[in-house]
Amino acid sequence: MTDPVRPSTPLLDRVREPRDLKRLTEAQLHQLAQELRAETISAVSVTGGHLGAGLGVVELTVALHAVFDTPRDRLVWDVGHQAYPHKILTGRRDRIRTLRQKDGLSGFTKRSESPYDPFGAAHSSTSISAALGYAVARDLGGDPPDGCGIGDCIAVIGDGSISAGQAYEALNNAGHLGRRLFVILNDNEMSIAPPVGAMSAYLSRLYSGAPFQDLKAAAKAAAGLLPPPLREGARRAKDALKHLAVGHGTLFDELGFSYVGPIDGHDMDSLLAVLRTVKARATGPVLIHAITQKGKGYAPAEAARDRGHATNRFDVVTGAQAKAPSNAPSYTGVFADALVRLAETDRRIVAVTAAMPDGTGLSKFMDRFSDRCFDVGIAEQHAVTFAAGLAAGGLRPFCAIYSTFLQRGYDQVVHDVAIQRLPVRFAIDRAGLVGADGATHAGAFDVTFLANLPGFVVMAAADEAELARMVATAAAHDGGPIAFRFPRGEGVGVEIDWAASPLPIGQGRVVREGAGVALLSFGTRLHEALRAAEALEARGIRPTVADARFAKPLDRDLILRLAREHEVLVTLEEGAIGGFGSHVAQLLAEEGIFDRGLKFRSMTLPDSFIDQASPREMYAMAGLEAQDIEAKVLEALGLKVLGRTVRG
Amino acid sequence: MTDPVRPSTPLLDRVREPRDLKRLTEAQLHQLAQELRAETISAVSVTGGHLGAGLGVVELTVALHAVFDTPRDRLVWDVGHQAYPHKILTGRRDRIRTLRQKDGLSGFTKRSESPYDPFGAAHSSTSISAALGYAVARDLGGDPPDGCGIGDCIAVIGDGSISAGQAYEALNNAGHLGRRLFVILNDNEMSIAPPVGAMSAYLSRLYSGAPFQDLKAAAKAAAGLLPPPLREGARRAKDALKHLAVGHGTLFDELGFSYVGPIDGHDMDSLLAVLRTVKARATGPVLIHAITQKGKGYAPAEAARDRGHATNRFDVVTGAQAKAPSNAPSYTGVFADALVRLAETDRRIVAVTAAMPDGTGLSKFMDRFSDRCFDVGIAEQHAVTFAAGLAAGGLRPFCAIYSTFLQRGYDQVVHDVAIQRLPVRFAIDRAGLVGADGATHAGAFDVTFLANLPGFVVMAAADEAELARMVATAAAHDGGPIAFRFPRGEGVGVEIDWAASPLPIGQGRVVREGAGVALLSFGTRLHEALRAAEALEARGIRPTVADARFAKPLDRDLILRLAREHEVLVTLEEGAIGGFGSHVAQLLAEEGIFDRGLKFRSMTLPDSFIDQASPREMYAMAGLEAQDIEAKVLEALGLKVLGRTVRG
Repeated sequence: MTDPVRPSTPLLDRVREPRDLKRLTEAQLHQLAQELRAETISAVSVTGGHLGAGLGVVELTVALHAVFDTPRDRLVWDVGHQAYPHKILTGRRDRIRTLRQKDGLSGFTKRSESPYDPFGAAHSSTSISAALGYAVARDLGGDPPDGCGIGDCIAVIGDGSISAGQAYEALNNAGHLGRRLFVILNDNEMSIAPPVGAMSAYLSRLYSGAPFQDLKAAAKAAAGLLPPPLREGARRAKDALKHLAVGHGTLFDELGFSYVGPIDGHDMDSLLAVLRTVKARATGPVLIHAITQKGKGYAPAEAARDRGHATNRFDVVTGAQAKAPSNAPSYTGVFADALVRLAETDRRIVAVTAAMPDGTGLSKFMDRFSDRCFDVGIAEQHAVTFAAGLAAGGLRPFCAIYSTFLQRGYDQVVHDVAIQRLPVRFAIDRAGLVGADGATHAGAFDVTFLANLPGFVVMAAADEAELARMVATAAAHDGGPIAFRFPRGEGVGVEIDWAASPLPIGQGRVVREGAGVALLSFGTRLHEALRAAEALEARGIRPTVADARFAKPLDRDLILRLAREHEVLVTLEEGAIGGFGSHVAQLLAEEGIFDRGLKFRSMTLPDSFIDQASPREMYAMAGLEAQDIEAKVLEALGLKVLGRTVRG
Repeated sequence: MTDPVRPSTPLLDRVREPRDLKRLTEAQLHQLAQELRAETISAVSVTGGHLGAGLGVVELTVALHAVFDTPRDRLVWDVGHQAYPHKILTGRRDRIRTLRQKDGLSGFTKRSESPYDPFGAAHSSTSISAALGYAVARDLGGDPPDGCGIGDCIAVIGDGSISAGQAYEALNNAGHLGRRLFVILNDNEMSIAPPVGAMSAYLSRLYSGAPFQDLKAAAKAAAGLLPPPLREGARRAKDALKHLAVGHGTLFDELGFSYVGPIDGHDMDSLLAVLRTVKARATGPVLIHAITQKGKGYAPAEAARDRGHATNRFDVVTGAQAKAPSNAPSYTGVFADALVRLAETDRRIVAVTAAMPDGTGLSKFMDRFSDRCFDVGIAEQHAVTFAAGLAAGGLRPFCAIYSTFLQRGYDQVVHDVAIQRLPVRFAIDRAGLVGADGATHAGAFDVTFLANLPGFVVMAAADEAELARMVATAAAHDGGPIAFRFPRGEGVGVEIDWAASPLPIGQGRVVREGAGVALLSFGTRLHEALRAAEALEARGIRPTVADARFAKPLDRDLILRLAREHEVLVTLEEGAIGGFGSHVAQLLAEEGIFDRGLKFRSMTLPDSFIDQASPREMYAMAGLEAQDIEAKVLEALGLKVLGRTVRG
């Protein structure tokens, strides 16, 4: 797959910044959109990444930048993975083929990257809250440090994202405050998975009941209704908007918004007309309902089941994606297979996902047990409490949520699950550093925020065989909440015993017996520990290596034995401070182990957010590779690593 | 205030369990409700607690238990503070005057307390999720461990709670799943504070537009429409419900619910008729909109600004509340005063609360700066991101949220605030153990889940003077997120320097110089540490006592000096494991301090949820009182506390 021939983009080549769009005719804006689409496809074919979402908003991106005055007007893209065309238009075209790569552009919007990204994203449903914050700051004379001032505030949010609780909270507050604010509902009936939930059905009814109106004419009429100056009065402006509002009496109207739409989000003329009108006339919050098509204009994406949601590098002509050779099954796949196997004989096992059936592997479970799998939509708060209700009702729910998304349901984990000791099983995928999605998706905090909860069992799998066994362990554990975490990507290639018995709760294992130095790993760093042990062996140091398996409850006997029988004890984990290593330190302190001296070190993720790169590069930056472990041991022993005399 | 004369309750005296209500006539149920109201008032007059909410649902409580078959029918009260009448009817009357006291009944619903509490609560907006979980478990043959089986599932939720994101997520999912489920919207236009938000306005329009219907007749007609058996078919049952549904075409209908109402929630005949009809006919989700009055039937509560939301012990006749003598201003009050003072000269300071203007003290700020204070409703997720938007817009937002409620916005704290390094100021009230509200409100986890975030500044105030200074420190800190935590209750009586300069970030202080033993406190345990030091002095041990002030960044110089110059170092905090003490341990390990031996101990909240009691009793149970600190020091020194020879 060679770098494809770049598309011909004569108009786009003349756009250095959004203000250049003001000089273009409407016909030229049409053409610009086509060039922008081609450039987006070309760029993602090189980098891989989120393709479908960006293609769906090409016209909207052009229209927004043509009508509004960014960066003073604050354009907040929800999630941000649809913002590649936006990045191309806002001075980042020269770096667009570095997307999601080390030292390259982020795959999401990011404040530190550009003043045209007034609010970063990656998790969904935050845009309305952020845009409302800007609108209020504007009205109170806020002077942002970027020096751009604050004009209009615009949130662009998908139909999947607007179904989440936070978006509703924000609409509710925005409708109440009544500030001038624009929310563009980008309705493509497809977030990552097909949409679920009553709200989604409602949105479909909204526009299936009302075919696209000739909004160009309506907008023209509305614009003609009132002479300048613009702010002639709230009531008359509202009247003008009403001429646009096809769906008056909608849920959004009930929440205090002026609803405009539905409009065809690929019809540049309609978009320009509507945006110009609302910009000229709005005095309060306006919701513009634009119907778009994910993957629009690129046949392979349009034809794909996920509409080209996320893709590897691909051949632009055929759409064929590059595929890295696979050495071992993915952790996600092993989790799903293990759960399906257990569910064959245990009718109590049910599964819950928050809009990620594919990402969590649960689509496999759903195919097999459609009545026992629940996709609740982007709704982690509800997902957790719903799972707690299922557990209270005598079922064995597995709640499969990525580490960072579980942060969305944290209070429910504490209040509904932990305090009530309900046996909800949390399958925590994407634990640790995840690569191209960067810091927003790094599963860094779950051990810290779960292992501090009384009665919680917290496990991490060292490899795919351990993961399968932990799924069985979780299924069998009816005594309270239990979580197991595992990373993104593929396993290490070990054989899996699908019939392995559940682990005794709180029992780790020694993987390699040694002396002097003990490496105690929690999670998949075990293999780096073993590599470090080999390297140390060359220096005459033969470390013991152990797999803790449990951050809670700790294997006290194992840990105290390691501490008493070794001069150095190093803990390893793929998580932030406050997690496994802290629990070990607490135990050692309480048992008086430090009183007599122990060369104890706790290796965690560093105290910084790490930008996107490959997972391996990220772990190298984090200092959690074999050589870092080796260096840590040598440091603890008072030895130096490079060019110095080393013991042994 | 002596124990009041018990009300005469001849009917209530015959009710041992809800099934006893089945034998009563409708007229007797009327009377029972009056007796239940009198008993509730009498009980709360003795114990203090949440009064207004319970009085508002007396008739609803009687009607629900008369019509449904609890505990098999699963009745889930949202928040749970309105469940005192429910507790009286469900076998707990003999203990009702132990509410919120040590070893007494919880002030909320609680699974471990009674099978009639199928799902505990205390935080809002979880009930629909939980009831839906039960409904799905029922349909999948779930067999709950309590042995009661699962019949109908009913969530009772207030208009404030239903405005929160989680409730919307749950409605959205319930409407989609279409299971038989009852949601009773208890609309009293008053949660804790007057309601805010567009949704609240919408609910008001719903019933102000439609006066109470004669639902008894409608229900009768509906019931008569169909002969038994009950499940004659979904379509006909739905038709029957439509006869009840006054507000057809409501937002709830759009979300897939059959809407019934509005009905008068104090009209027993209407309640019984409607509940019996929906019980007989519903096949899918039904929302019953009941209008009630918080504090109903007790004049002092009806007249109070908060409708008797929470009260101290009181005189039943006059309503006059007992008031404990106050020695010092409350921490909440000091925070509010400090913020108002700073805001007088700094127009950038704005404040955000999630439906708790009184509890957080921000009502004072709101009175003074109405345009700079934002009550966003029960919407912590939005509150945090909204504050992040305000910060991005150049303002200085103070987001005042209780420790446990901040758990609701954790992902937003990580994703929108920490990763973007936006200077949102978090004022974390109710940090540590809180007393009568028990485990669900104990602020145990915030240090753990905030101090692990890169770039976060985390402070705890040792007394009210320190708190005032930390408010100033936060106001001045534009470099990134900053949080300061402080407990419920009153300060220690020290003088406050309102003009004190901001603290240097990361600088602790030594409060008392000593030798051999160092006590390093983070938060208000400082005063227990000083008491412990005095007690130890009697034994010839003269501890150094220090106030860390910052859990992040740590005062490295101070901590390393304490470690190097003392034999024993004990950290103290009012939080769970993984917080301050863990950060100190990580520093000591990294600096090799443990290599040479240090008697290090970290005193945290224990690994258990502590039931309600007085704060002092709870801290005694937690082992964080002066005598516990003294014992910990003696243990570390190898000395025994009681009846043994002690050094010095």
